[in-house]
Amino acid sequence: MASKRLVVDVHTHLYLPRYASLLRKRTDLPKIITRTRDDGQKEERLVILKDEPSGGRPVGPSYVERDEKLRFMKNHGIDISIVSTANPWLDFLSTKEAHELALQLNDDLDEYCSSGPTVPGTSMRQLYGFGLIPIVPNISTKSLLEAVRQISASSCLKGLIMGTRGVGNGLDDEALDPVWSAISEAGLTVFLHPHYGIPQETWGGKNNGHVLPLALGFPMETTIATTRLILSGVLDRFPSLRLLLAHSGGALPQLSSRLASCIDHDPIVASRLKHDARFYLGKLYLDAVCYGPEELGFVSDVLARSNRYETGSKNIVPGSRSVGSGRMLFGTDHPFFPPLSSSEKWKSVVENLDAINNVQDWTKADKDGVKGGNAISLFNL
Amino acid sequence: MASKRLVVDVHTHLYLPRYASLLRKRTDLPKIITRTRDDGQKEERLVILKDEPSGGRPVGPSYVERDEKLRFMKNHGIDISIVSTANPWLDFLSTKEAHELALQLNDDLDEYCSSGPTVPGTSMRQLYGFGLIPIVPNISTKSLLEAVRQISASSCLKGLIMGTRGVGNGLDDEALDPVWSAISEAGLTVFLHPHYGIPQETWGGKNNGHVLPLALGFPMETTIATTRLILSGVLDRFPSLRLLLAHSGGALPQLSSRLASCIDHDPIVASRLKHDARFYLGKLYLDAVCYGPEELGFVSDVLARSNRYETGSKNIVPGSRSVGSGRMLFGTDHPFFPPLSSSEKWKSVVENLDAINNVQDWTKADKDGVKGGNAISLFNL
Repeated sequence: MASKRLVVDVHTHLYLPRYASLLRKRTDLPKIITRTRDDGQKEERLVILKDEPSGGRPVGPSYVERDEKLRFMKNHGIDISIVSTANPWLDFLSTKEAHELALQLNDDLDEYCSSGPTVPGTSMRQLYGFGLIPIVPNISTKSLLEAVRQISASSCLKGLIMGTRGVGNGLDDEALDPVWSAISEAGLTVFLHPHYGIPQETWGGKNNGHVLPLALGFPMETTIATTRLILSGVLDRFPSLRLLLAHSGGALPQLSSRLASCIDHDPIVASRLKHDARFYLGKLYLDAVCYGPEELGFVSDVLARSNRYETGSKNIVPGSRSVGSGRMLFGTDHPFFPPLSSSEKWKSVVENLDAINNVQDWTKADKDGVKGGNAISLFNL
Repeated sequence: MASKRLVVDVHTHLYLPRYASLLRKRTDLPKIITRTRDDGQKEERLVILKDEPSGGRPVGPSYVERDEKLRFMKNHGIDISIVSTANPWLDFLSTKEAHELALQLNDDLDEYCSSGPTVPGTSMRQLYGFGLIPIVPNISTKSLLEAVRQISASSCLKGLIMGTRGVGNGLDDEALDPVWSAISEAGLTVFLHPHYGIPQETWGGKNNGHVLPLALGFPMETTIATTRLILSGVLDRFPSLRLLLAHSGGALPQLSSRLASCIDHDPIVASRLKHDARFYLGKLYLDAVCYGPEELGFVSDVLARSNRYETGSKNIVPGSRSVGSGRMLFGTDHPFFPPLSSSEKWKSVVENLDAINNVQDWTKADKDGVKGGNAISLFNL
C-alpha cells in the first residue's frame, strides 16, 4: 500500500496569526517582543518560559506562515503534518478569553488545513491538526465539552493538544472525567505536551542556556503528569482514551519498572489500580522524538512488554519490538530546535529520522509504520 | 575464576548505631520517633522526607544491626555487601558536627566491616563500605580532604557516598574541584545518591503515599545532578573520576540523546564540552537497581554506545550490550523496600536479580559480571 510509505509528522507546532497577534499585544509572558539586533536589523523574539535566558528565542515566519510549514515539509520529505498550537496554548487566559479563543482557533486551524494542498495521488490532505480546548482554572465542563464537539465535527482536526495543568489541579483531577469520557467516545487523540517543566530552583545557579529546562524539565513534566494520570485511575476508568505523549513519554519508560515496584511496596496505593503500572504504558501512543535509536528501541520494548502486566495475563514472553513500534509516531518539534547555522536540512529532524532507521530489530515495515503508517491508521487519514 | 560467580551488593544501606542514636535525639527532620501502634506495641519510625505521609516508615534492626544485614545477605545469596550510610547522611549538620561525625562514622564503618566475616575460601571480606565526607555548606576544603584521606587509608572503605547538594550550590560548583581531584587520585568511587527529589509542589494534591517522590523524584534528582556535573565540565577536568549512580542513573540514559541535541542547539553551551554529552555516560558506573530487564539492557546499550561520541571517534557501530554491562553493578537498596507482608525473600531483591538474568543479549558472563564480578574488579576486592 502506497500510503504505508508516506512520512507523517505528528509533533509540529504553529502559532496561528490570530494567536501571534495576541502574543504581540501582551506585556506579560507569554509574549512576542521586537528588538533591534547588533546589526541594526529588527527581529521578533518569543518569550514563553519564566526566567528565559537570552531574552527568548527568534520567532520568524516558520512559526506562523503556512507556506513556511509546507516548505519545511518538502525539504525534509514530510508528506503530512498534524499541526498543533505551540505551548503555552490558552493556559494564561481568563475563562471567557480561553473559551472564545479556543473556538476561533479551532475554526482557524480547520481552515488552515482544509484550504491547504492534498497529497498528490491520494485523497489525503497535507495538513491536519490538533485543536484546543479551553482547559484553564474555573472553566465550566460545558465549555470544555463544546470545544471537544467542535473538534470532533471537523474532518481536519484529529484530536487536541493540552498541557499538564488541567483546570488548575493537574490531570489527575476527577473534575476532568467528563472531558476524558467525551474525548474517548469521540475517538479523538489527546496530544499531551509539556510547558512548565519542573521548578527553576532545581537547575542551580550556572548559565546553561535552555538546556536543563528543555532537555530534562520538559520530559520530566510529561512523566509526572502521566504517572499521576495512571495513579488516579484515569486509564482504568477510560481504557480506550488515546493519549499521545510528547518526546517519547519523557522518562516514563525508563522509570516504569521502578514505578511498578514503588506502587507494589506502598500500602496507600498497592491495591488501587487494576493492573501493574507497566500495563498502562502499552495503552499509550508515543511520538518518536527522542533523538537516538537506542532510546526508540527501548521505548518499543516497554510498549511491547505491557502484555505481561495485564492482571490475569499468562504471557511470560514480552511482545517484540515490532509490536511496540506500532504505537510510535514520527515527529519533528518544528519550528523549535532550528539549526544554529543555516542549513537546508535541520539536524534535529535528520537525527530523529536516522534514529528510526537505525533501531536494532525494527523491520523495514516497522520503520515505515513509525515514519507514517501508524499515524495514518491512528488518525484514520 | 571462582570469584566471578560471587554476588556483590553495591547499593545497601545502614544507620550505624552512633548515627541512629543521633536521629533518636532529634526533634527536627531527619529523626527516629517512637510511637505506639494500634496493637499496643511500640515501634520506631524513621522520618526523613519533608511532608512524609503515614508518619514515616518502620525502622527496625535491619537498619542498624550487622547480624540483620548478614542474615539478609544469606537469605538472598549475597556474598559481599558494600554498605553505605542511608540518606540524608550528614547534610543537616553544622560544619563542626559534620566534620567530627564523618571521621567517627568512617572509623565505625571500618570496624563494622573489618571485624565481620570473610567470604569462605577467599581473603575477601563479606562487608566493605562507602565512607562519608562532611559535605555541608561552609565546610572547609581542608576538612573534606581530611575525610577523603581517612577513607583512602582504610582497606575496607572503597569510596564514599554523597547526595547532590555539594557545599550548598550543587555538584556543579567549582569549589568542589579539589575534592574531585583528591577522590580521583585516590582511586575512590563516589556513590551518588538522591535524597531531596524534586519540589513537592510537582506531585499535586492526591495521596499517593511515597510513590511519586520515590519512583520519580529520586531518579530525577540524580539525573539533574549528573547532568549539571557534565555541563560544568567536571568530567572533562577529571576524566578518571569514578562516579557510581544510584538507580541505574535515573532518567539520564533515556534523556541523553535529547540532552545532546539540546546542547547542540543552544548557543550558550554548544561549544563548551570536549565531547557529545553521550560520551560522558560511558564513563559512569551505574547500579543495576531499576527492576526490569528491558531497562537494564537499554542502560547497557547507552553505556556501550559512548564509543561513538568521543570527539574524533571513527566508530560508526555502537559497542555491544556486553561492553556496557561491564560498568553495571547489582544492588538491592536494602533495608528500604521491604515486602508489605513478611516473606523470606524480598520481592524488590528478587526482581532486580531476575531482571539481570533476563536481559536479552547479555551472556552468562555478562550477568555474572553485573551480579558481582564487575564490583570485584572496580573495588579491587
